[in-house]
Amino acid sequence: MVSIFKKEAAVMIDRRDMLALGTLGALALGTSSLADAASVTPDQVSLPFHGRQLHVLDLTHRLTRAFAFTPGRLSMEAVEGSGTKAGMALNRISIVEHTGTHLDAPRHFAPDGASVGDIAISQLIVPLVIIDIRKKAKADRDARVEPEDVAAWERKHGRIPAGSCVAMVSGWDPLGVVANYGSLSPDERRKSPGFDAAVMDILMKRNVIGIGVDTMSIDAGEAMPAFPVHQAWLRSGRWALEGLTNLDRAPVAGGLLFAGVAPLENATGMPARVIALY
Amino acid sequence: MVSIFKKEAAVMIDRRDMLALGTLGALALGTSSLADAASVTPDQVSLPFHGRQLHVLDLTHRLTRAFAFTPGRLSMEAVEGSGTKAGMALNRISIVEHTGTHLDAPRHFAPDGASVGDIAISQLIVPLVIIDIRKKAKADRDARVEPEDVAAWERKHGRIPAGSCVAMVSGWDPLGVVANYGSLSPDERRKSPGFDAAVMDILMKRNVIGIGVDTMSIDAGEAMPAFPVHQAWLRSGRWALEGLTNLDRAPVAGGLLFAGVAPLENATGMPARVIALY
Ligand SMILES: [Zn+2]
Ligand SMILES: [Zn+2]
Repeated sequence: MVSIFKKEAAVMIDRRDMLALGTLGALALGTSSLADAASVTPDQVSLPFHGRQLHVLDLTHRLTRAFAFTPGRLSMEAVEGSGTKAGMALNRISIVEHTGTHLDAPRHFAPDGASVGDIAISQLIVPLVIIDIRKKAKADRDARVEPEDVAAWERKHGRIPAGSCVAMVSGWDPLGVVANYGSLSPDERRKSPGFDAAVMDILMKRNVIGIGVDTMSIDAGEAMPAFPVHQAWLRSGRWALEGLTNLDRAPVAGGLLFAGVAPLENATGMPARVIALY
Repeated sequence: MVSIFKKEAAVMIDRRDMLALGTLGALALGTSSLADAASVTPDQVSLPFHGRQLHVLDLTHRLTRAFAFTPGRLSMEAVEGSGTKAGMALNRISIVEHTGTHLDAPRHFAPDGASVGDIAISQLIVPLVIIDIRKKAKADRDARVEPEDVAAWERKHGRIPAGSCVAMVSGWDPLGVVANYGSLSPDERRKSPGFDAAVMDILMKRNVIGIGVDTMSIDAGEAMPAFPVHQAWLRSGRWALEGLTNLDRAPVAGGLLFAGVAPLENATGMPARVIALY
């Protein structure tokens, strides 16, 4: 079977190339559900829906041991099943909830807060607002989403829609940080972009329901271990997404985000498949 | 915090009731992202998108220990994190891949087949075809989706779209079966509806990419432990969804299905958040 990993091909794939992969390769690329083969990459697809093209972009990092960072945070072992003799294979997964691209539920910081299993579908598909701080994050590893960044977005696109998810794109590459960890100074290791606590009140006044980041924490690295953003945001009954990717390719206004998390009772967080729809 | 479980309220909730729940209750019901509060239930929401109402229906059972059926198949334990002193709580989850509403990847039966982590987004958001066998499943616990059921769907709605997911609604209630297990005869325990192996070829000719069921196995109970449907379908490089719910409320034609699975490398299956869009 030809397996197509998300990151292998950033280029557009032409219909002839897909046919050359054979049926399974074509299925792997989703050709069969395509109106226009040229609009598919391994992490993006456009398909006809109610008379227009619906664009879907994957905002999820592949959940690998390398992306789990700490050894032991993610492991799998084969188990016997009722169909083992018939050739069935299956595994038991052992994973810390907050691994890979994942959702933080209120319960992560609020003992009586909603768990992942308490979050209704209406809270998980919401308008997507993207705040781009790549320019300042390039100059400063401690860059934050500040009140002025929110104001700038609103000057351009109007008031942040109630019930939306506000996502920061800082250009951070969590895997790159890990790969280069040895060559970073102690100061560089401690720093990563995030939301400024001063923004929390503004977003709550807009009735924003979720925030998201392309780093591994909604709190900037320097702000830990006090976790002021986690404290304020999650304790107010809202959720967060950490470890998002591809936010630079999603529309800054007008799209929707869906956070696909299995509704696990009592969970404080859960690895997710997150998509943008536009 | 008012927590709203999916199954608690099947009735429509009126805007005044939501306001009475206070901010967090309202957030829990997603009021803030609503154009029309009356179109929200805990497992359904409609929201404005490109000039029309986008309807989203949750097809996912809540992932509870009761729904995991076998004790030990799902467990959690609290772990210490970098923020424990700041009030952070988090858990390590131990779970068998094929638990709750979940996706079967080709690797479940094909050693070299795609794992959950290999499935591109273009394969996970696809046209949804629903084949309703509730009438015959009520009369016969061994009812199957047969070639005639596929032909009947096509006579009414046209050829099954290439790249789609074909889902069986049998009216099965996995939790009800478990609750009443003691009162079932051995014959009743062994039987559950599923796909007939004779349908596999037809669906492959249509380039269908996934099949789904509201039971816990795409194979009818009687067909196990040979697993003819798992064998044929997964070994051809396609995926399946087991343990779906609410299929009776989704459109039988014209909708889309999104299978939200965290892209875990090497996994043969994974609990999912599955939605219908229409
Ligand atoms: Zn987290
Ligand atoms: Zn399975």
